Order: sequence, then C-alpha cells, then structure tokens
Amino acid sequence: MDYKPLSGREFPRFSGIKTFFRLPLADAKSDCDILMVGVPYDGAVSYRPGARFAPSQIREASSLGRGFHMTRNRNVFDLKKVADGGDCSVVPIDQTQTYEKVEKHFGEILSSGKKFIAIGGDHSLALPLLRAAHRSAGEPLNLVHFDAHLDTYPAAWNCEYHHGSFLRHAVEEGLIAPDRSMQFGIRGPLAGGEDLDFVRKHGIHVFTVDDVREKNLSEFLAKIPKFKGPTYITFDIDCLDPAYAPGTGTPVVGGLTTYETQRILRALEIENLVAADLVEVSPPFDSSQITALAAVDTLFEILCLMSAN
Amino acid sequence: MDYKPLSGREFPRFSGIKTFFRLPLADAKSDCDILMVGVPYDGAVSYRPGARFAPSQIREASSLGRGFHMTRNRNVFDLKKVADGGDCSVVPIDQTQTYEKVEKHFGEILSSGKKFIAIGGDHSLALPLLRAAHRSAGEPLNLVHFDAHLDTYPAAWNCEYHHGSFLRHAVEEGLIAPDRSMQFGIRGPLAGGEDLDFVRKHGIHVFTVDDVREKNLSEFLAKIPKFKGPTYITFDIDCLDPAYAPGTGTPVVGGLTTYETQRILRALEIENLVAADLVEVSPPFDSSQITALAAVDTLFEILCLMSAN
Amino acid sequence: MDYKPLSGREFPRFSGIKTFFRLPLADAKSDCDILMVGVPYDGAVSYRPGARFAPSQIREASSLGRGFHMTRNRNVFDLKKVADGGDCSVVPIDQTQTYEKVEKHFGEILSSGKKFIAIGGDHSLALPLLRAAHRSAGEPLNLVHFDAHLDTYPAAWNCEYHHGSFLRHAVEEGLIAPDRSMQFGIRGPLAGGEDLDFVRKHGIHVFTVDDVREKNLSEFLAKIPKFKGPTYITFDIDCLDPAYAPGTGTPVVGGLTTYETQRILRALEIENLVAADLVEVSPPFDSSQITALAAVDTLFEILCLMSAN
Amino acid sequence: MDYKPLSGREFPRFSGIKTFFRLPLADAKSDCDILMVGVPYDGAVSYRPGARFAPSQIREASSLGRGFHMTRNRNVFDLKKVADGGDCSVVPIDQTQTYEKVEKHFGEILSSGKKFIAIGGDHSLALPLLRAAHRSAGEPLNLVHFDAHLDTYPAAWNCEYHHGSFLRHAVEEGLIAPDRSMQFGIRGPLAGGEDLDFVRKHGIHVFTVDDVREKNLSEFLAKIPKFKGPTYITFDIDCLDPAYAPGTGTPVVGGLTTYETQRILRALEIENLVAADLVEVSPPFDSSQITALAAVDTLFEILCLMSAN
Amino acid sequence: MDYKPLSGREFPRFSGIKTFFRLPLADAKSDCDILMVGVPYDGAVSYRPGARFAPSQIREASSLGRGFHMTRNRNVFDLKKVADGGDCSVVPIDQTQTYEKVEKHFGEILSSGKKFIAIGGDHSLALPLLRAAHRSAGEPLNLVHFDAHLDTYPAAWNCEYHHGSFLRHAVEEGLIAPDRSMQFGIRGPLAGGEDLDFVRKHGIHVFTVDDVREKNLSEFLAKIPKFKGPTYITFDIDCLDPAYAPGTGTPVVGGLTTYETQRILRALEIENLVAADLVEVSPPFDSSQITALAAVDTLFEILCLMSAN
Amino acid sequence: MDYKPLSGREFPRFSGIKTFFRLPLADAKSDCDILMVGVPYDGAVSYRPGARFAPSQIREASSLGRGFHMTRNRNVFDLKKVADGGDCSVVPIDQTQTYEKVEKHFGEILSSGKKFIAIGGDHSLALPLLRAAHRSAGEPLNLVHFDAHLDTYPAAWNCEYHHGSFLRHAVEEGLIAPDRSMQFGIRGPLAGGEDLDFVRKHGIHVFTVDDVREKNLSEFLAKIPKFKGPTYITFDIDCLDPAYAPGTGTPVVGGLTTYETQRILRALEIENLVAADLVEVSPPFDSSQITALAAVDTLFEILCLMSAN
Repeated sequence: MDYKPLSGREFPRFSGIKTFFRLPLADAKSDCDILMVGVPYDGAVSYRPGARFAPSQIREASSLGRGFHMTRNRNVFDLKKVADGGDCSVVPIDQTQTYEKVEKHFGEILSSGKKFIAIGGDHSLALPLLRAAHRSAGEPLNLVHFDAHLDTYPAAWNCEYHHGSFLRHAVEEGLIAPDRSMQFGIRGPLAGGEDLDFVRKHGIHVFTVDDVREKNLSEFLAKIPKFKGPTYITFDIDCLDPAYAPGTGTPVVGGLTTYETQRILRALEIENLVAADLVEVSPPFDSSQITALAAVDTLFEILCLMSAN
Repeated sequence: MDYKPLSGREFPRFSGIKTFFRLPLADAKSDCDILMVGVPYDGAVSYRPGARFAPSQIREASSLGRGFHMTRNRNVFDLKKVADGGDCSVVPIDQTQTYEKVEKHFGEILSSGKKFIAIGGDHSLALPLLRAAHRSAGEPLNLVHFDAHLDTYPAAWNCEYHHGSFLRHAVEEGLIAPDRSMQFGIRGPLAGGEDLDFVRKHGIHVFTVDDVREKNLSEFLAKIPKFKGPTYITFDIDCLDPAYAPGTGTPVVGGLTTYETQRILRALEIENLVAADLVEVSPPFDSSQITALAAVDTLFEILCLMSAN
Repeated sequence: MDYKPLSGREFPRFSGIKTFFRLPLADAKSDCDILMVGVPYDGAVSYRPGARFAPSQIREASSLGRGFHMTRNRNVFDLKKVADGGDCSVVPIDQTQTYEKVEKHFGEILSSGKKFIAIGGDHSLALPLLRAAHRSAGEPLNLVHFDAHLDTYPAAWNCEYHHGSFLRHAVEEGLIAPDRSMQFGIRGPLAGGEDLDFVRKHGIHVFTVDDVREKNLSEFLAKIPKFKGPTYITFDIDCLDPAYAPGTGTPVVGGLTTYETQRILRALEIENLVAADLVEVSPPFDSSQITALAAVDTLFEILCLMSAN
Repeated sequence: MDYKPLSGREFPRFSGIKTFFRLPLADAKSDCDILMVGVPYDGAVSYRPGARFAPSQIREASSLGRGFHMTRNRNVFDLKKVADGGDCSVVPIDQTQTYEKVEKHFGEILSSGKKFIAIGGDHSLALPLLRAAHRSAGEPLNLVHFDAHLDTYPAAWNCEYHHGSFLRHAVEEGLIAPDRSMQFGIRGPLAGGEDLDFVRKHGIHVFTVDDVREKNLSEFLAKIPKFKGPTYITFDIDCLDPAYAPGTGTPVVGGLTTYETQRILRALEIENLVAADLVEVSPPFDSSQITALAAVDTLFEILCLMSAN
Repeated sequence: MDYKPLSGREFPRFSGIKTFFRLPLADAKSDCDILMVGVPYDGAVSYRPGARFAPSQIREASSLGRGFHMTRNRNVFDLKKVADGGDCSVVPIDQTQTYEKVEKHFGEILSSGKKFIAIGGDHSLALPLLRAAHRSAGEPLNLVHFDAHLDTYPAAWNCEYHHGSFLRHAVEEGLIAPDRSMQFGIRGPLAGGEDLDFVRKHGIHVFTVDDVREKNLSEFLAKIPKFKGPTYITFDIDCLDPAYAPGTGTPVVGGLTTYETQRILRALEIENLVAADLVEVSPPFDSSQITALAAVDTLFEILCLMSAN
Repeated sequence: MDYKPLSGREFPRFSGIKTFFRLPLADAKSDCDILMVGVPYDGAVSYRPGARFAPSQIREASSLGRGFHMTRNRNVFDLKKVADGGDCSVVPIDQTQTYEKVEKHFGEILSSGKKFIAIGGDHSLALPLLRAAHRSAGEPLNLVHFDAHLDTYPAAWNCEYHHGSFLRHAVEEGLIAPDRSMQFGIRGPLAGGEDLDFVRKHGIHVFTVDDVREKNLSEFLAKIPKFKGPTYITFDIDCLDPAYAPGTGTPVVGGLTTYETQRILRALEIENLVAADLVEVSPPFDSSQITALAAVDTLFEILCLMSAN
C-alpha cells in the first residue's frame, strides 16, 4: 500500500471519505509505521462533554493538512508510513470496559512494532494508553505533558479515574519517570495550594504560562530539559488559551498560544517518541473549527517528532 | 413562605437568580406541594451528550414562564405551592451511584407527601425515578410516555441501563402497568421489526405520529384511553420533530409539533399525577433556546395536570 | 426613477448595496407609492433585545425576494412604485425622543400621499406609527394584529409605553376601532385571567391558535370578518412558532406556521391598507436567517395587500 | 463482502469512519446493488454556497440511521446490498469538467448494473446525472422532482447551466418524459408569471404546497399519478420549509414539512427507480444538523423505494 | 453562614443553582465582606445590546471558578466572606429610574460595611456606582479603568448619560481624582483628535495598547504608578481584543490579551479597593463562552485584589 | 458631495443603509479620491466558500468604523474624499467573465484618476485587479502581500487561475516587480519543499511568522525594506491566526495577530499606494463578526496609507 494522503489535485480537500490527513485506512496487521487512532470516549469529564465527537471532527478538519514542515524542511509522509487506524471501540457508559478495550487495542498496535497517536476523547484515556505504552517499552516513560491542569487530582465522587487524575495514577503505577517528565501550560486558579504538592514531591518539571513568557520565547525554549529513553507526549488542548481553543471541556483563561506550542514542540529533542495522544477537543463547543484546526496542527507537529528517528 | 414566582414587574425577566419559573428554592422538608428538581446526568446516552446542562438552561428559559393557563382558565401557582428543589446530586462517571442517589432523593420527596417533576438529564433516569414513585405508590403506575423511541431496547455494550431501555426494565420490574400505559410520538426507522415485540406483548398502547395525524387532531384526542390510579408522565423531548426540538441527543425526523403535544397533554384525564420527568434536552445542540422553550412549556402543561386535583 | 428591484441577472443576489427587496432608495419627496422604512429601536423590550439590527438583517435577507405572487398572479412591483426609505432616526436610550421622531417621520410620508411599511424595532413603535396613521386617516383605523401576545398590558416598572402595551393605548387614544380590529395567533400562558378583560370589553376579535386550527384552515379563513375603511396591519413576528421564528424577543411556544400566516394574509379583504409594520425580529437570536426570511415573506404579502387598490 | 451497516452495539454511533449509513465502502466493480455517492460541487448556486460540504455532513448525520422501515415493515439492508461509493471527483472552479466527470462516473455505475443515489452538491448536478441515467435506460425517464423552485429558468449571466435550470435542459434534451413527471413543493414568489409557461407547455404535473394542503394529506396522496417505466427522483432539500431545512442555498418560506415529504415518498408507486439524487444541503447554514438529518431520512425513504423491486 | 463555594466534589460543576462562583446568596444585611451583584441594564449602549444577560451567563460560566490564586498563593474564599447578592433591580426602558435604584442599592451595601463587585450591564452603570462609592468614601476615588474607549465622550442624541460618557461625568462630578486615575487598553480609531483633550487636561494616566507592548511586559508593569487612598476598578471587557472577548457591545480590534490584563491586575498595588465593576459582556454575541470565561477570571483577580487587605 | 461618514450622532451606528464606513455611494464618474468596491466572487476557492458575502458583512461591521488614526494623528476622511463604489458585477459560475468584468471595472476607476480598495471575494481576484493596476501604472508594481500562503502554486484540476496562484501569474505576466515585493505572515505546513522555489528564484522578500517574532516587534519593523514607485497591497485575511480570523476559506494555525498586522501596516513607508485589496473573509464561518471587524480595521489602516500622499 502507498501510505500517501489523498491528493487535493485529484479530489479537492472538501471531498472524499474523511480520514486523518486523508491517509489510507489500515490496522495493526498492516505494514505502516504509525497509526493514528480515534478514541471517542468522554465519559470521565467533569464539566462539558462532547469529546466523543473529536475524532470525527479532527478527521474533517485535517482535510486541510499537508505534510511538508517548513522549519524541519521535510515531508513527514515521505519519512514514515502513516495511516488512519479508525476508532478504538469504547463504551460510553462504562469506563472499566473502555479502559480494557483501550489498553488492549493500543497494546496490539505497539506489539506489531508500530507507534501510535491516539486522538481522544477525554484525558482519562491517557492512563490506559500509558499502561500499554509502558508495558511495550518495558520501562518507565518520559512524559511530555501539555495541559492547563496538573491532572494529579484525587478521586472525585468516589471515582479514582476521571479526566483530572491520569498523571497521579501514572506516577503511582510507575508508568512514567517523574523526574524525566515535564508539563507545559499549567496555570491557576487551583482548588488549593496542596494541588502542587504531588508534582513537587515527585520532581516533575512544571512550566507554567508565566515560565514560558518570563523572558522571550527563544530563551525559554533553550531551557527545556532533554532526556534519553522512550517518550510519550500527551497533549490536552486546554493548554491553549480559550481564544485559540474554545472547544474544550474545562477551559482556563490565560493560556498558551498555538504559536507557543508549535515552538515548544519544535524545540523538543526526543530520542524515541513511542506514542502520543491529543485529548479534550469538544466539537459542540468549538466555533468555526478553531479548536479542531489547532488539534490538526498539533498532530502534524507530533507526527514530525515521531518521524524524526 | 409565599410560593409565587418572582414578579417581572419588580425584576425584569432577564434578571435574578435563575430557578424554575422564577420560583423560590425549597427542599423536601418545606411545606410546598410540588418540587421541580434538576437531575443533570447524561452518562447513558448513545449519541450526543449535553443533557447535563439542561436543568440550568431550562431554568434560564423558564424566566419567560407564566402561570395562567388560557384553556384551563386558572393559574397553576394559585392552586399549588410549587418550588425549585435545586439539583439532585449525580456522578457523571458512575451510573450505579447516580441511580442510588436519584432513587433516594426523589423517594424522600415523595415520602414527605410532595409530588415531583424531575428535569433531566437523559432518559436512563426514568428508571430510578419510577422505582421511587412505584415504592411510594405501592402499586404499579400508569405511564404516559412521550418519545420518538420505544425505549424497550436490550442491553448495549453489556450495559443493561442506558437511555433506551428504561421502559423494558420498568415493565420487567413491575413498576408500571403496561396495559394502563401509553406512548405518543413513536416513529421509525427502527433497528428491526422485533423492536415492537415487547410493547405488543405487554399491551402498551402505542400511538405513532401516523396515528396522531391519521384524522384531524380532535378526533385523535377523543380516542386517548383513560385509566384510574396513580400516574407518571415521562416526556422525552425527542418526541418532538427536530424543527421544534433540535437540541436533543438522538433526534428523529418526522416528529410531533409542540402544538400537538400541548393538545395531547391538555386532553389527558389523569386522576392522580404523582410524578413526572422531562428528559433529553441537550443545550449544546440547541439553537436560540428553541428546545429549552419547548421544555418550559411542557413543564407548564405538566404542572397544570399535577395541580388538577 | 424606475422603481424596480436590482436585477439578479445583472448583479447576483448576494451582491450589491442591501436595500429592502433590492429596491432603489427614495424619500418622502419622491414620487413613489410605498416606502419601506426601518425603525431600529428596541429600547422597550422586556426580555431579549436585538431588534435594532432587524432592518439591516431583513434588507440582507430580502436579497432573495421576488415580486410575482403565485396565487394573486401579479407582480407587486408592476402595480406600485415601491422604494426603500432608509431608516428613521431613533434614540436608543430615549423612548420619548424616539416616539416623536417616529410619529413625525411617518406623518410626513403619509402627508406626501404615500403609504408606508415600517420595519422595527420592537412593538412599542406601533403606537407612534398608529398615531401618525390615525392623524392622516382622520378616523379610527381598522387594525389587523398578528401576535402571540395581547399587547394590552398595564404599565411596567412605572413605564406606560413598553412593547406589550401599544394596543391598550391605541384603543384608549381612539386611534383604532376595536370592533373593527382583530388579532391572530394569540396564545397562553398569560400572567392572569384578567389579561383578556380589555379585549373582551372593547370587542376586539381575538383569534387564538386554537381558533385557527379548530377545523381545517380553509374553514377558518372563510370566517375572518371583513371591514370597510382605512386599515393598518401590525405584524409581530412572535405570532409564529419559535420553530418558524426563533429570532424574536419574547417567543411563545405553540404558535402559527408561516404557511398559516401566508394564508391568513392572502384571505384578508382590505379595502384600503394605509400603513403597516413588522416588528420584533431579533437577529442576534436568529439562526440561519430563518426569522429574517419569514419577515421578508410577510413583507411581500403585505406589499401585495397594499398594492391591491 | 457483507453489506451491513457497522453495528452500533460494537461501535457506538458517534464512533468510526463516517460513511453513508455506516455502510462499507465499495465501487462500481463491486457486487453491491446500490451505490450512494457524494458529489461535492456547489459552483453553480446563485446565492448561498456550501453544498460542497454536504456529502461529508450527511455521512456524519447518517450515523443515527437505521434500516427497518416501520410502515413498510422491512429492513432495506436485508433487501439490497448497499454501499458508500465515496465521492465523485469534481472541479470547484470548472463546471464543464465537473459535468463530464459526473456523467462518466455515474454512467459507469449504471453500466455495471447498479443503481445509484447521488448526494450533492447543488442542483445543477441533476443534469449530468440524468444524462447518465437516460443513456443507461435508453428511453426518457419519469421524473419525480421535489423542490421549492421550478428549475426551468433561462440562462443567467450568460451561463446556461446553473442550479435553477436543470429541468429545462432535461426536457429539451429529451432526458425525461414531461407528461410522466411531477413536481412537489413548488411555491412562490416567482420572478414572473411566465415562469410557469414551461411546465404548463410540457405538461409536467406540478403540485404546489397549496395543492398538498388543500384537503387532508391522505386525500392528496391518493391523487398522485402513477406511471410505468424507469424513474428518477431528484430531491432538492429546499422543498422543505426553512424551519425543517434551514441549511440550504435558496430557502423559500412556506414549504413542506418532513412528515409531508415522508408520506409522499411512501405513497409513490414506482415500478423501477433507477437512480436518484438529493441536493442543496448547505452545512455552513445548517443549525444543529436539522437539515442534514432531514436529508438522511429522505435518503432512507429513497433507499426503500429503490429496494422495492 | 459558611461563605464557601458549593463543592464540585458534592455537586459536579455543571449542577446546582447558578450563583457567582457557586457562592451562597446573601444581602446587605448579612455578615459577609464582599457582595457580588448583577446589574442587568443595557439600555445605554450605542451598538450591540445584550449585556442584560451578562450576570446570568457569568454566573453560569463561573461554575468553573476556583479560589486559590497560583501566584498570590492564597485562597480568596479563605480570606474573605464573599457572597452572591443577586441582581439589583433595574428598569430596561428608563435610565433615570435605573440610576436611582443602582445608586441606592449599592449605597446600602457600602453603608453596611461591605465591599461590592457589580457585574453589568453596560458601562453607563459605572456612574451611579461611582456616586455610591464616592459618597461612602467621602473623598474622590482613585480609578483604575480598563477599556478600549476613553469614555469621556460628549452627550449623544441629547442624552448626557450613555455607555461612553461615565468618566467625563465622574470627573466633572468630582467622584474621582483624575491625577490618581489610570486607563489601560485604550486604542483607536477615534472620532477625532479632540477625544483625547479631556483626559490630557485632567491628567488621567492613559496607557494605550502600544504603551503596554512597547517593551516587554515586565518592564511595563514596573512603571504602573501607585496611589494611596480608596480605589475603584471599572473593567470594560472590550479592553480585550475581540479574539479574547468577542461578546461585547462595541468591540475594537488590536486589544489586550487576557494574559496581559491578568498581569496588570496582579501588578496593581492598591491600598484599599472599595468597589469594582465588570461591564459590557454581551452573551448573545459571545461564542463558546469565551467572553464570559474571561469575565469570570477577571472577577477572580479583582476578588483577590479586594481581599488583599 | 460631502464625502463624510453618516454621523453616529444623527443615526446610531446600528441604523442606516450599510455602506463601507457609512460613506456615501459614488462611482467612477464622481469626484472622489478613493473608491471602496466590493467584489463578491468566491468561485476559485479550494476549500470553504462564502467570501461572496464578505462585502456585505464588512459593510455591516464597518458601522463601528471611525476616521481618526490615533498614531498618525489625523482623520483619513479629512484628507481624502472616500466613497463606497458598490459592488463590481461578477458571475459566480464563470471565472473568465468575472476576470473581464473586474479588470474593466477597476481599470475605469483608475482611468478616472481615482485609487481603489477592492473588497473580495477570494484571492483569485488579485490577478485581474493587478492587471488593471499595472496597465494604469504603466510599470511593474511593488507588491505588499499579507498571507499565510505563498500563492505561487501551480494549476489545480487543469485550472490555471485559482485562489492560490495569483502571485505566480502576476510575476509571470510582469505585473509586479518581485524584488520590490514582500510577503508577511507566510507559514507552513506546505505541500512540498519546492513550494518555496518560485519566490526564492524571483527574489520576493518573504517574512514568515517566525521572522516577525524572532526578536521583538520593533526590531522587525525596522528591517522592513522600502521601495520607490507605485505600490499595491493585497491583504489575505488568513495571514491572521484563526483565533483572530476564524471566518476564512483556508485557515492556517500559528498566524499573525491583528496587532502585528496593524504595526506592520503602520510601519510601511509607501510612496504611492495606487490600489489595494482585502480578500478571503468568509462570513458563514465567522463568529461574532471577529473576522469582519479585523477586515474593517485593516481597511482603515490601508485607507490611511493611501491617504498619506
């Protein structure tokens, strides 16, 4: 199979069956390198639902996607065989079943020697995804985490697993190496000062919006730490300001711009990006696809990172 | 306490804290007759979520509500002491906990000698509400069910309790008397012909949109059966056509108009309406509050039925 | 001047300066027969504002307007010289100034021997418009009033003149002949039973939605009374159901359809329609111009009535 | 291949790659019976564009589609092998190229012994589609035409082929038999009385909205003529009222309801429905998918007609 | 009473009666420290109305609010007893009555020893609010004014008091000390060069967007002057760029970002913030609550300033 | 004629016939200096259409426009006689006819000694506009080009002239001097690395978003080259980030802010700005007029540049 996007010169970009970046459909048994897979589960959000429609909307918006990165000077679709893996089966009412299905589905992708980018869905999905990635890697992963929120919160309503607690579990389960992990875009208000205790205790590198903007952007980028070993990126779209990503579940004012996340993603030096996810896009609250377009662009940057080696 | 809506002559209708019909807040321990209570749970929907925002949006839209019924020639707020009971606590991720909370909360309202109108939330809530109402009544209830769907569907994704199965459980648990129950607004397409087996077997009176429109409306209304005994109304807003209720989770084309549901509600002769619910309004998919306004008007008609004796 | 709409064959309907029905601009000194004039005042509404943008939005939507009436079998723009008279100057903060400006402006149009159609703005404007029309006619006018509301309400917040009281003042000031006046589309809920006292006492012919739909439409149309003498039509867009006119200030569920108002307007036998208004379109609450298009179609029907003799 | 829709019990309806009715993808060389094919060309509209996004949006909305027709008592997907044929290649800027591509693409489908349903796109596409269908049939077709407009208009801006002229060309080219053709939903205003000359001269059976509603619906349905021979249905969504189909290019107030078009489609007795199209859905002007859902339901009714023999 | 926000762990943030920050309701007679009060009057705007719906929408959006300030390292709701004071009664048609009601209502709050934050409504409300605050303080106030506009404009349409003239009156009435007052966010275009005469003459410290961005933000913040004495903050949401605050009455391109206003608010050293307002949020023109969320965040920053001493 | 905008003090800004900046209507035969002319053609876009509605929407949004530039300290309407020239006739289906009409129409404006600002429509219009401007100037023009895209792309679907190829043709036809031309806002992703070959070969000065933000803005502005001779500005609104201009045909994430384009436009030193265009605003995809307002502000800056000498 030829893993190239459907040409806009044959089929204008508004036409055709919608797949991520107009790529062909494939599965874990195919010979592609990277599978982009939707995970339309939003049952664990605490405010606005709707992320179940994100895979579909992001496929639609990715019709405008192209493959050549202007700064990196290469076409990601020449470097790697990328395909749309369809959606992972989920159960909207039942998180336990969903977690099992997700961990199994993405585990099989990794077992077949592929990398994946999961498109959520809500951020509770990062936990089964990290479980699969950790099992495959055989060691704690470096985590690059974009978010407005720390996601280390305690159980809510007697539920351990919600969209604001994946990171706490990932650390507690040993899925990631906290001292080789970092967060970008964190900002308040918080529920309380103790919200920060967990990340401090575990030595996660937290970069708030203030940190990013303290001096000029280049100076900040130069300070981003570099780690060896297998890495996982989780990108919660609410790291962006509501002006740049209105369509999300728990928006926080005063966030990053898409230009800043582009530059951070370009500045990352990652030895081996084994998997990634992009979560919390909520199309019913999006306007004019602003958020979906930001998601598509982020996926493109992640694809480039994943294709780098 | 004076259970009267906040006057629009003192506070214009766009002002003030939003409660149902601008009524005072009260709880099960108060001396009111009817409590209107929000139940913002939408975890069991199979397509569009968002009904968790319905109680809040319906409160907002009910600012335009008034109390005097032109056909019945009486003011519902003169007949009964009605109050806003706030929202029932729910757990968005956990249906089991939610069911328990709902059944307990509304059971207490009924135990205190009050009637209730629950504002969902999705239609899976009708089951714990009926359980509470059935326990309080001590006998199977007559059910008046407005819906596009039969809601007798089997388990989905290994989940018994979803927003399309409440009626099957209500019959199987003996909560309602099927031969004294009726459905309005049913229409296709269906998944299969066997979808109708359950209601046929149990003798539920099914009135499709075709039935309502076969002759002129007055003729249809004259044929609606009347039953003695305690009655429960469950009103799924998707009984209405998408033109009249775009903001719902699983819209079905070719539905009833608001005028038709008004006339059916006015034609019902109910001896004792003990409780009711209105479900499946999804504000993120509403436009210009069309659906929320239809919901408010329906609540007004139900209030009138509940105040009749 | 040639009072013909700009041709869509020369300039596609999405192009050109927006005037009502793409007609030329003219004023009271011109030789046209009918002036369509915007009155963008919405300061007297009790709930949603926004009707100040209605003249502009209705001009935009009227780009799709055409002149030939299929039932009447004639082109209104062949029968009469119609022009866009621009907007009447109003003061958004000051009703008193606005009333004076409106009465003066439309009085001058009538004095010049023309007829007018005023495009509001809110329904409080009907009072100065009726004052001007009454002075010009020299006798009480027949009123044809489309509305969900009676508009005979008492003062609110110590303000005599709001968007729900024009009819009471019109009767009390002797501007109209109540026994030669009629209302279409009235429906509840009301604030109280006494709301109906005024129209009953004065013998206004009230046709509720129930009246219109009691039998089939043709039978209803045959029963509409006919009166001699100068007539004024005031069309509050909220006579329509929210499905047909979501963009309005105080929507009421269970209203007329556009087909019904078309048929009523076509059934009216009016000897001399001297003036008319269309009010309460609120573009910020419209969706996809549904309401603006209904307004344009209504204006077309009124133009045809006005051109009949 | 098993031509069954993806099960909602395996993959919830919000998940999965979007195809018409969740059907498998196939092409002219497959062994299916009916191909549903998008034609995203909207270059010939005279007012609002956007229909190029209709195939994609209708695929999305058809996620809620089901196969069992409640009145016909059968499941369309049991009767025929139906598939999504993807989109036909079009050229947004160049109508001539588009016409050639469309005629060729659908000609090949028919040559392979299949039937098709084309999802536009604008109504100018009906011409190359009819050319293909006529060539395949070898005789003039019966046409069933749903529309607010006659579509017999003359050239505009020196362009013979626009979205309001397909019927004139179809008659002039001998593609259809006018005396065995009928129109539903026609209404004014018109540009002029001569607009009706063409259909009168050629004896096309025109049913206006007034005709449909003159008596009760059943009486109208009984009068619909029946013709032998190969038939083509073209369904312009603007036959519906803007309340039922706001998302269209040239909406006309006072239109049909979806219930009426459902009933007309069910009442048609068609010996051999060889092909059909559904056009003029414009998603950028739709709200809450009302129009897209109406389109999906109409496609379902057409599929049932096409599967009848 | 315990002045704590309703816990999201008991009632998810989408549930419950909507009050500012989920705080309890209280009035001037209560023992709270700060009352947040809606003032839903928008009768004095010159372009888009709709701010009458702002208190309600901001209450809704504040469901996501939290109390712990990440930079200040404290929880505002631990420092002060804050409550929702409901809405002040207003008269939409009558500015004079509204001004009297507002001045009286907020005067009583101050007399009871509380501070207030008023949530408008339009900017004309700042005048009666300042009158109340000035009377209570007994001396001219320092004013911190965020706005795109100078608000020193002359009377319009013979109306002295509109939404662009409060500052002129505040200076002329001696309510504020101009040389201890400052403006942030001012930008053109202006009506004329003389627009600047008033602020120059009175020595108000004007900081344009260019001033804020001339060097880097920290350098600008260091230059903000500090004044002793009672201070009032008036925050017109249109100081923000339309990308960050689309839902406002008279948007101006090229405005501040929310991050910039956050940083300015954090940099202010205010000895005694006696009162504040936030105005000109217009929900009908908002999209995805972007503007309402910016308003909530600003209210949080103002609360922190008000709780500082 | 007095070429002054309609005063907001006589007619509030929401009232009146909508023209650009509320200016009088005039044509090529008038004695004005600058004509602003709509060109509502969007037939050559590759993704989202809708720019045909831009002239109308920008006229509406320009109601808020004012004439005094705060930095330049002058009122543009005092310096030059500016008028609204209405819309140029276009043919939505036929690019060839449209190109001829556009070139002729704007050629006549230039021949009459006026300058023009064309408001598109899509970017394919820049070619006939440049042809007219080049013929009038008699020499290759300096081009200032704001865009996300290079617009030097090859033919698509056998069509030479689409909305992404005007610059290639302008160079090849000798309409502009590439070495005296510059581009602002360019960014990826691109289709391929060879996309940059054309501009490199011809020596066009390309400033990417990275270039603009490399250091602080003032440093960048100081480096913008200055050229003598007649100049043309073409402003594609998609140079802006989707947060600042969601309503456009082919949005690209990571774009300029309106503040940056304001500052660049103010920094340009142009000896003789003979003509300009603003293109690619697509109102159906705009939200709350954010994009239209950005367009109005840009037109104001261009007017100031054009009035400078």
